[in-house]
Amino acid sequence: MNLDDLRDQVRAFAVERDWQQFHTPKNLAMALAGEVGELLAEMQWLTAEQSTAVMHSDDGARVRAEIGDVMIYLVRLADVLDIDLIGAARDKLAESARRYPAAEVRGSAAKARR
Amino acid sequence: MNLDDLRDQVRAFAVERDWQQFHTPKNLAMALAGEVGELLAEMQWLTAEQSTAVMHSDDGARVRAEIGDVMIYLVRLADVLDIDLIGAARDKLAESARRYPAAEVRGSAAKARR
Amino acid sequence: MNLDDLRDQVRAFAVERDWQQFHTPKNLAMALAGEVGELLAEMQWLTAEQSTAVMHSDDGARVRAEIGDVMIYLVRLADVLDIDLIGAARDKLAESARRYPAAEVRGSAAKARR
Amino acid sequence: MNLDDLRDQVRAFAVERDWQQFHTPKNLAMALAGEVGELLAEMQWLTAEQSTAVMHSDDGARVRAEIGDVMIYLVRLADVLDIDLIGAARDKLAESARRYPAAEVRGSAAKARR
Repeated sequence: MNLDDLRDQVRAFAVERDWQQFHTPKNLAMALAGEVGELLAEMQWLTAEQSTAVMHSDDGARVRAEIGDVMIYLVRLADVLDIDLIGAARDKLAESARRYPAAEVRGSAAKARR
Repeated sequence: MNLDDLRDQVRAFAVERDWQQFHTPKNLAMALAGEVGELLAEMQWLTAEQSTAVMHSDDGARVRAEIGDVMIYLVRLADVLDIDLIGAARDKLAESARRYPAAEVRGSAAKARR
Repeated sequence: MNLDDLRDQVRAFAVERDWQQFHTPKNLAMALAGEVGELLAEMQWLTAEQSTAVMHSDDGARVRAEIGDVMIYLVRLADVLDIDLIGAARDKLAESARRYPAAEVRGSAAKARR
Repeated sequence: MNLDDLRDQVRAFAVERDWQQFHTPKNLAMALAGEVGELLAEMQWLTAEQSTAVMHSDDGARVRAEIGDVMIYLVRLADVLDIDLIGAARDKLAESARRYPAAEVRGSAAKARR
Protein backbone atom coordinates (compact mmCIF):
# COMPACT_ATOMS: atom_id res chain seq x y z
CA MET A 1 0.00 0.00 0.00
CA ASN A 2 1.31 3.45 -0.84
CA LEU A 3 0.25 6.93 0.22
CA ASP A 4 -2.30 7.29 -2.59
CA ASP A 5 -3.89 3.98 -1.63
CA LEU A 6 -4.09 5.07 2.00
CA ARG A 7 -5.70 8.38 0.99
CA ASP A 8 -8.28 6.47 -1.07
CA GLN A 9 -9.05 4.09 1.80
CA VAL A 10 -9.47 6.92 4.30
CA ARG A 11 -11.72 8.74 1.86
CA ALA A 12 -13.83 5.61 1.30
CA PHE A 13 -14.09 5.15 5.07
CA ALA A 14 -15.59 8.64 5.35
CA VAL A 15 -17.90 8.27 2.37
CA GLU A 16 -19.30 4.92 3.58
CA ARG A 17 -20.26 6.57 6.86
CA ASP A 18 -21.51 9.80 5.26
CA TRP A 19 -19.00 11.69 7.37
CA GLN A 20 -17.73 14.00 4.58
CA GLN A 21 -20.17 16.58 5.95
CA PHE A 22 -18.08 16.78 9.16
CA HIS A 23 -14.75 16.76 7.37
CA THR A 24 -14.17 20.46 6.83
CA PRO A 25 -10.51 21.51 6.99
CA LYS A 26 -11.22 23.30 10.25
CA ASN A 27 -12.76 20.24 11.89
CA LEU A 28 -10.06 17.93 10.58
CA ALA A 29 -7.31 20.23 11.87
CA MET A 30 -8.92 20.00 15.31
CA ALA A 31 -9.19 16.22 15.07
CA LEU A 32 -5.53 16.03 14.03
CA ALA A 33 -4.58 18.15 17.04
CA GLY A 34 -6.69 15.95 19.32
CA GLU A 35 -4.84 12.84 18.15
CA VAL A 36 -1.46 14.56 18.59
CA GLY A 37 -2.60 15.37 22.12
CA GLU A 38 -3.14 11.66 22.76
CA LEU A 39 0.36 10.96 21.44
CA LEU A 40 1.81 13.58 23.79
CA ALA A 41 -0.02 11.96 26.69
CA GLU A 42 1.85 8.72 25.95
CA MET A 43 5.19 10.53 26.15
CA GLN A 44 4.60 13.17 28.80
CA TRP A 45 6.08 11.47 31.86
CA LEU A 46 8.84 9.59 30.04
CA THR A 47 12.47 10.62 30.29
CA ALA A 48 14.31 11.20 27.01
CA GLU A 49 15.84 7.73 27.37
CA GLN A 50 12.51 6.06 28.11
CA SER A 51 10.98 7.73 25.05
CA THR A 52 13.79 6.36 22.88
CA ALA A 53 13.00 2.83 24.07
CA VAL A 54 9.23 3.23 24.10
CA MET A 55 8.55 0.80 21.25
CA HIS A 56 10.11 -1.98 23.33
CA SER A 57 7.89 -1.16 26.32
CA ASP A 58 4.29 -1.96 27.16
CA ASP A 59 3.35 1.43 25.70
CA GLY A 60 4.74 0.62 22.24
CA ALA A 61 1.50 -0.64 20.74
CA ARG A 62 -0.40 2.43 21.94
CA VAL A 63 2.25 4.78 20.54
CA ARG A 64 2.04 3.04 17.15
CA ALA A 65 -1.77 3.27 17.21
CA GLU A 66 -1.69 6.99 18.07
CA ILE A 67 0.78 7.66 15.27
CA GLY A 68 -1.55 5.76 12.95
CA ASP A 69 -4.42 8.04 14.02
CA VAL A 70 -2.33 11.17 13.44
CA MET A 71 -1.38 9.92 9.98
CA ILE A 72 -5.01 9.13 9.10
CA TYR A 73 -6.21 12.65 9.93
CA LEU A 74 -3.23 14.29 8.24
CA VAL A 75 -3.87 12.30 5.06
CA ARG A 76 -7.57 13.14 5.19
CA LEU A 77 -6.91 16.85 5.79
CA ALA A 78 -4.50 16.99 2.87
CA ASP A 79 -7.08 15.18 0.73
CA VAL A 80 -9.91 17.63 1.39
CA LEU A 81 -7.51 20.55 0.80
CA ASP A 82 -6.16 18.89 -2.36
CA ILE A 83 -2.59 19.18 -1.07
CA ASP A 84 0.08 16.67 -2.08
CA LEU A 85 1.61 15.73 1.30
CA ILE A 86 4.95 14.60 -0.08
CA GLY A 87 5.29 17.72 -2.22
CA ALA A 88 4.36 20.06 0.63
CA ALA A 89 6.93 18.39 2.91
CA ARG A 90 9.64 18.35 0.22
CA ASP A 91 9.16 22.06 -0.51
CA LYS A 92 9.24 22.96 3.19
CA LEU A 93 12.37 20.89 3.72
CA ALA A 94 14.08 22.71 0.85
CA GLU A 95 13.13 26.03 2.42
CA SER A 96 14.50 24.92 5.80
CA ALA A 97 17.73 23.81 4.14
CA ARG A 98 18.21 27.33 2.79
CA ARG A 99 17.26 28.91 6.10
CA TYR A 100 19.47 26.71 8.26
CA PRO A 101 22.73 26.10 6.39
CA ALA A 102 24.43 23.07 7.94
CA ALA A 103 27.72 24.91 8.43
CA GLU A 104 26.03 27.58 10.56
CA VAL A 105 23.72 25.58 12.77
CA ARG A 106 25.57 22.31 13.28
CA GLY A 107 24.90 20.84 16.72
CA SER A 108 22.89 23.83 17.93
CA ALA A 109 19.35 23.40 19.15
CA ALA A 110 18.97 27.14 19.69
CA LYS A 111 19.30 27.60 15.94
CA ALA A 112 16.84 24.81 15.21
CA ARG A 113 13.91 26.89 16.43
CA ARG A 114 11.68 27.91 13.52
CA MET B 1 9.47 11.15 -4.60
CA ASN B 2 7.74 8.59 -2.37
CA LEU B 3 7.40 8.30 1.39
CA ASP B 4 10.66 6.35 1.80
CA ASP B 5 12.54 9.01 -0.16
CA LEU B 6 11.04 11.74 2.01
CA ARG B 7 12.04 9.86 5.16
CA ASP B 8 15.60 9.54 3.87
CA GLN B 9 15.78 13.24 3.00
CA VAL B 10 14.48 14.31 6.39
CA ARG B 11 16.97 11.98 8.07
CA ALA B 12 19.84 13.38 5.98
CA PHE B 13 18.75 16.92 6.87
CA ALA B 14 19.08 16.05 10.58
CA VAL B 15 22.39 14.20 10.18
CA GLU B 16 24.01 17.02 8.20
CA ARG B 17 23.19 19.40 11.05
CA ASP B 18 24.09 16.96 13.82
CA TRP B 19 20.56 17.34 15.15
CA GLN B 20 19.93 13.63 15.79
CA GLN B 21 20.91 14.33 19.42
CA PHE B 22 17.78 16.49 19.78
CA HIS B 23 15.52 14.09 17.91
CA THR B 24 14.28 11.92 20.75
CA PRO B 25 10.71 10.67 20.29
CA LYS B 26 9.63 12.91 23.16
CA ASN B 27 11.14 16.04 21.61
CA LEU B 28 9.82 15.20 18.15
CA ALA B 29 6.32 14.64 19.50
CA MET B 30 6.49 18.15 21.01
CA ALA B 31 7.77 19.61 17.75
CA LEU B 32 4.96 17.87 15.87
CA ALA B 33 2.44 19.35 18.29
CA GLY B 34 4.00 22.80 17.91
CA GLU B 35 3.57 22.64 14.14
CA VAL B 36 -0.02 21.43 14.49
CA GLY B 37 -0.55 24.45 16.74
CA GLU B 38 0.60 26.73 13.92
CA LEU B 39 -1.82 24.99 11.58
CA LEU B 40 -4.68 25.54 14.04
CA ALA B 41 -3.75 29.21 14.23
CA GLU B 42 -4.31 29.49 10.47
CA MET B 43 -7.81 28.03 10.84
CA GLN B 44 -8.99 29.36 14.19
CA TRP B 45 -11.05 32.36 13.11
CA LEU B 46 -12.32 30.88 9.85
CA THR B 47 -15.90 29.75 9.42
CA ALA B 48 -16.41 26.20 8.18
CA GLU B 49 -17.04 27.61 4.71
CA GLN B 50 -13.94 29.80 4.75
CA SER B 51 -11.84 26.82 5.82
CA THR B 52 -13.17 24.81 2.88
CA ALA B 53 -12.03 27.56 0.49
CA VAL B 54 -8.78 28.36 2.30
CA MET B 55 -6.48 27.09 -0.45
CA HIS B 56 -7.95 29.70 -2.80
CA SER B 57 -7.33 32.51 -0.31
CA ASP B 58 -4.24 34.49 0.64
CA ASP B 59 -3.71 32.02 3.50
CA GLY B 60 -3.41 29.00 1.17
CA ALA B 61 0.37 29.06 0.83
CA ARG B 62 0.81 29.25 4.61
CA VAL B 63 -1.61 26.37 5.18
CA ARG B 64 0.32 24.21 2.69
CA ALA B 65 3.62 25.13 4.36
CA GLU B 66 2.29 24.27 7.83
CA ILE B 67 0.99 20.93 6.58
CA GLY B 68 4.43 20.33 5.10
CA ASP B 69 6.00 20.99 8.51
CA VAL B 70 3.57 18.63 10.23
CA MET B 71 4.36 15.91 7.70
CA ILE B 72 8.13 16.40 8.12
CA TYR B 73 7.99 15.93 11.89
CA LEU B 74 5.57 13.00 11.65
CA VAL B 75 7.85 11.25 9.15
CA ARG B 76 10.89 11.95 11.33
CA LEU B 77 9.14 10.72 14.49
CA ALA B 78 8.07 7.50 12.78
CA ASP B 79 11.64 7.07 11.51
CA VAL B 80 13.29 7.32 14.93
CA LEU B 81 10.65 4.96 16.37
CA ASP B 82 11.07 2.58 13.41
CA ILE B 83 7.34 2.67 12.70
CA ASP B 84 5.96 2.20 9.19
CA LEU B 85 3.55 5.15 8.85
CA ILE B 86 1.40 3.57 6.15
CA GLY B 87 1.14 0.30 8.06
CA ALA B 88 0.29 2.01 11.34
CA ALA B 89 -2.45 4.06 9.64
CA ARG B 90 -3.82 1.06 7.71
CA ASP B 91 -4.06 -1.04 10.89
CA LYS B 92 -5.76 1.76 12.79
CA LEU B 93 -8.22 2.33 9.97
CA ALA B 94 -9.10 -1.38 9.98
CA GLU B 95 -9.70 -1.19 13.74
CA SER B 96 -11.92 1.87 13.31
CA ALA B 97 -13.88 0.09 10.57
CA ARG B 98 -14.69 -2.72 13.03
CA ARG B 99 -15.49 -0.26 15.80
CA TYR B 100 -17.73 1.99 13.73
CA PRO B 101 -19.78 -0.18 11.37
CA ALA B 102 -21.09 2.01 8.58
CA ALA B 103 -24.67 0.82 9.07
CA GLU B 104 -24.68 1.94 12.71
CA VAL B 105 -22.95 5.31 12.54
CA ARG B 106 -23.96 6.69 9.16
CA GLY B 107 -24.28 10.45 9.24
CA SER B 108 -23.77 10.74 12.98
CA ALA B 109 -20.97 12.90 14.34
CA ALA B 110 -21.77 11.85 17.90
CA LYS B 111 -20.75 8.34 16.97
CA ALA B 112 -17.58 9.51 15.27
CA ARG B 113 -16.01 10.44 18.58
CA ARG B 114 -13.21 7.98 19.46
CA MET C 1 -11.23 29.42 46.93
CA ASN C 2 -8.96 31.78 44.99
CA LEU C 3 -6.11 31.17 42.54
CA ASP C 4 -3.47 30.96 45.27
CA ASP C 5 -5.53 28.38 47.13
CA LEU C 6 -5.92 26.33 43.97
CA ARG C 7 -2.17 26.48 43.32
CA ASP C 8 -1.51 25.27 46.87
CA GLN C 9 -3.99 22.40 46.51
CA VAL C 10 -2.53 21.27 43.20
CA ARG C 11 0.95 21.43 44.71
CA ALA C 12 -0.13 19.38 47.72
CA PHE C 13 -1.74 16.83 45.41
CA ALA C 14 1.64 16.34 43.66
CA VAL C 15 3.65 16.26 46.89
CA GLU C 16 1.38 13.67 48.51
CA ARG C 17 1.95 11.37 45.52
CA ASP C 18 5.68 12.13 45.23
CA TRP C 19 5.02 13.29 41.66
CA GLN C 20 7.13 16.46 41.83
CA GLN C 21 9.91 14.41 40.20
CA PHE C 22 7.77 14.17 37.02
CA HIS C 23 6.67 17.79 37.13
CA THR C 24 9.41 19.43 35.08
CA PRO C 25 8.23 22.40 33.01
CA LYS C 26 8.79 20.36 29.86
CA ASN C 27 6.63 17.46 31.07
CA LEU C 28 3.92 19.75 32.40
CA ALA C 29 3.77 21.65 29.10
CA MET C 30 3.17 18.31 27.37
CA ALA C 31 0.50 17.34 29.89
CA LEU C 32 -1.19 20.72 29.39
CA ALA C 33 -1.17 20.15 25.63
CA GLY C 34 -2.58 16.66 26.09
CA GLU C 35 -5.51 18.03 28.08
CA VAL C 36 -6.12 20.77 25.52
CA GLY C 37 -6.20 17.97 22.93
CA GLU C 38 -9.02 16.30 24.88
CA LEU C 39 -10.88 19.60 24.95
CA LEU C 40 -10.50 19.95 21.17
CA ALA C 41 -11.85 16.43 20.75
CA GLU C 42 -15.05 17.52 22.51
CA MET C 43 -15.49 20.40 20.08
CA GLN C 44 -14.14 19.02 16.80
CA TRP C 45 -17.34 17.92 15.08
CA LEU C 46 -19.57 20.68 16.49
CA THR C 47 -20.77 23.56 14.39
CA ALA C 48 -20.09 27.05 15.70
CA GLU C 49 -23.69 27.17 16.94
CA GLN C 50 -23.48 23.79 18.63
CA SER C 51 -20.29 24.83 20.39
CA THR C 52 -22.02 27.95 21.71
CA ALA C 53 -24.74 25.78 23.26
CA VAL C 54 -22.46 22.96 24.38
CA MET C 55 -22.92 23.56 28.12
CA HIS C 56 -26.63 22.84 27.71
CA SER C 57 -25.93 19.56 25.89
CA ASP C 58 -24.96 16.11 27.09
CA ASP C 59 -21.32 17.07 26.47
CA GLY C 60 -21.41 19.99 28.91
CA ALA C 61 -20.12 18.09 31.92
CA ARG C 62 -17.20 16.67 29.95
CA VAL C 63 -16.29 20.11 28.58
CA ARG C 64 -16.28 21.53 32.09
CA ALA C 65 -14.11 18.64 33.33
CA GLU C 66 -11.61 19.09 30.47
CA ILE C 67 -11.37 22.80 31.16
CA GLY C 68 -10.75 21.93 34.80
CA ASP C 69 -7.88 19.66 33.74
CA VAL C 70 -6.38 22.36 31.53
CA MET C 71 -6.55 24.84 34.40
CA ILE C 72 -4.93 22.39 36.83
CA TYR C 73 -1.92 21.83 34.59
CA LEU C 74 -1.60 25.51 33.71
CA VAL C 75 -1.62 26.43 37.41
CA ARG C 76 0.91 23.71 38.18
CA LEU C 77 3.19 24.75 35.31
CA ALA C 78 3.12 28.38 36.41
CA ASP C 79 3.87 27.23 39.97
CA VAL C 80 7.00 25.25 39.09
CA LEU C 81 8.20 28.14 36.89
CA ASP C 82 7.37 30.67 39.63
CA ILE C 83 5.25 32.71 37.24
CA ASP C 84 2.27 34.75 38.45
CA LEU C 85 -0.49 33.70 36.05
CA ILE C 86 -2.60 36.83 36.48
CA GLY C 87 0.41 39.09 36.03
CA ALA C 88 1.63 37.25 32.93
CA ALA C 89 -1.83 37.46 31.35
CA ARG C 90 -2.30 41.12 32.31
CA ASP C 91 1.06 42.09 30.79
CA LYS C 92 0.36 40.18 27.60
CA LEU C 93 -3.08 41.75 27.30
CA ALA C 94 -1.52 45.22 27.65
CA GLU C 95 0.94 44.35 24.89
CA SER C 96 -1.88 43.13 22.64
CA ALA C 97 -3.82 46.32 23.31
CA ARG C 98 -0.88 48.35 21.99
CA ARG C 99 -0.38 46.02 19.04
CA TYR C 100 -4.03 45.91 17.99
CA PRO C 101 -5.53 49.36 18.48
CA ALA C 102 -9.31 49.01 18.56
CA ALA C 103 -9.80 51.68 15.92
CA GLU C 104 -7.65 49.78 13.41
CA VAL C 105 -8.79 46.20 13.88
CA ARG C 106 -12.45 46.53 14.77
CA GLY C 107 -14.49 43.63 13.45
CA SER C 108 -11.60 42.10 11.51
CA ALA C 109 -10.51 38.54 12.18
CA ALA C 110 -7.66 38.84 9.70
CA LYS C 111 -6.12 41.45 11.96
CA ALA C 112 -6.64 39.35 15.07
CA ARG C 113 -4.00 36.90 13.95
CA ARG C 114 -0.72 37.68 15.75
CA MET D 1 -5.95 42.11 40.12
CA ASN D 2 -7.82 38.86 40.66
CA LEU D 3 -9.27 36.29 38.27
CA ASP D 4 -12.62 38.08 37.94
CA ASP D 5 -10.84 41.32 37.08
CA LEU D 6 -8.77 39.56 34.45
CA ARG D 7 -11.89 37.98 32.94
CA ASP D 8 -13.52 41.41 32.77
CA GLN D 9 -10.47 42.97 31.12
CA VAL D 10 -10.22 40.20 28.52
CA ARG D 11 -13.92 40.55 27.79
CA ALA D 12 -13.59 44.33 27.40
CA PHE D 13 -10.64 43.81 25.07
CA ALA D 14 -12.83 41.66 22.81
CA VAL D 15 -15.84 43.96 22.98
CA GLU D 16 -13.81 47.09 22.13
CA ARG D 17 -12.59 45.33 18.97
CA ASP D 18 -15.97 43.79 18.11
CA TRP D 19 -14.32 40.38 18.20
CA GLN D 20 -17.05 38.61 20.20
CA GLN D 21 -18.39 37.39 16.85
CA PHE D 22 -15.21 35.28 16.43
CA HIS D 23 -15.17 34.09 20.03
CA THR D 24 -17.23 30.92 19.76
CA PRO D 25 -16.13 28.16 22.13
CA LYS D 26 -14.90 26.16 19.15
CA ASN D 27 -12.72 29.00 17.85
CA LEU D 28 -11.40 29.85 21.30
CA ALA D 29 -10.48 26.21 21.96
CA MET D 30 -8.45 26.29 18.73
CA ALA D 31 -6.79 29.57 19.71
CA LEU D 32 -5.97 28.12 23.13
CA ALA D 33 -4.39 25.09 21.45
CA GLY D 34 -2.44 27.34 19.10
CA GLU D 35 -0.94 29.22 22.04
CA VAL D 36 -0.10 25.98 23.84
CA GLY D 37 1.66 24.95 20.63
CA GLU D 38 3.83 28.06 20.87
CA LEU D 39 4.64 27.18 24.47
CA LEU D 40 5.66 23.65 23.44
CA ALA D 41 7.92 25.14 20.75
CA GLU D 42 9.80 27.01 23.49
CA MET D 43 10.39 23.76 25.38
CA GLN D 44 10.79 21.18 22.63
CA TRP D 45 14.58 20.98 22.36
CA LEU D 46 15.31 21.59 26.05
CA THR D 47 16.47 18.81 28.35
CA ALA D 48 14.48 18.29 31.53
CA GLU D 49 17.17 20.22 33.41
CA GLN D 50 17.20 23.10 30.93
CA SER D 51 13.42 23.36 31.16
CA THR D 52 13.66 23.61 34.95
CA ALA D 53 16.04 26.57 34.60
CA VAL D 54 14.29 28.17 31.65
CA MET D 55 13.12 31.27 33.52
CA HIS D 56 16.76 32.17 34.18
CA SER D 57 17.66 31.82 30.49
CA ASP D 58 17.21 34.12 27.50
CA ASP D 59 13.98 32.23 26.75
CA GLY D 60 12.39 33.11 30.10
CA ALA D 61 10.55 36.22 28.91
CA ARG D 62 9.08 34.37 25.94
CA VAL D 63 7.93 31.48 28.13
CA ARG D 64 6.20 33.93 30.48
CA ALA D 65 4.54 35.68 27.53
CA GLU D 66 3.31 32.39 26.05
CA ILE D 67 1.89 31.33 29.40
CA GLY D 68 0.16 34.71 29.56
CA ASP D 69 -1.41 34.05 26.15
CA VAL D 70 -2.58 30.58 27.22
CA MET D 71 -4.15 32.05 30.35
CA ILE D 72 -5.90 34.81 28.37
CA TYR D 73 -7.59 32.33 26.02
CA LEU D 74 -8.46 29.92 28.82
CA VAL D 75 -10.09 32.73 30.80
CA ARG D 76 -11.95 33.93 27.72
CA LEU D 77 -13.14 30.41 26.82
CA ALA D 78 -14.41 29.85 30.35
CA ASP D 79 -16.15 33.23 30.20
CA VAL D 80 -18.08 32.52 27.00
CA LEU D 81 -19.04 29.07 28.35
CA ASP D 82 -19.99 30.58 31.72
CA ILE D 83 -17.71 28.16 33.55
CA ASP D 84 -16.06 29.09 36.84
CA LEU D 85 -12.41 28.15 36.23
CA ILE D 86 -11.49 27.72 39.88
CA GLY D 87 -14.55 25.60 40.56
CA ALA D 88 -13.99 23.39 37.51
CA ALA D 89 -10.37 22.80 38.52
CA ARG D 90 -11.24 22.17 42.16
CA ASP D 91 -13.90 19.60 41.24
CA LYS D 92 -11.56 17.82 38.83
CA LEU D 93 -8.79 17.75 41.43
CA ALA D 94 -11.17 16.17 43.93
CA GLU D 95 -12.09 13.52 41.36
CA SER D 96 -8.42 12.81 40.67
CA ALA D 97 -7.74 12.49 44.39
CA ARG D 98 -10.37 9.75 44.58
CA ARG D 99 -9.09 8.06 41.44
CA TYR D 100 -5.43 8.12 42.41
CA PRO D 101 -5.16 7.44 46.16
CA ALA D 102 -1.74 8.61 47.32
CA ALA D 103 -0.96 5.29 48.97
CA GLU D 104 -1.44 3.39 45.71
CA VAL D 105 0.30 5.62 43.19
CA ARG D 106 3.11 7.19 45.17
CA GLY D 107 6.18 7.80 43.01
CA SER D 108 4.73 6.05 39.97
CA ALA D 109 4.40 7.91 36.68
CA ALA D 110 2.74 4.91 35.06
CA LYS D 111 -0.16 5.35 37.44
CA ALA D 112 -0.36 9.08 36.80
CA ARG D 113 -1.65 8.49 33.29
CA ARG D 114 -5.42 8.92 33.24
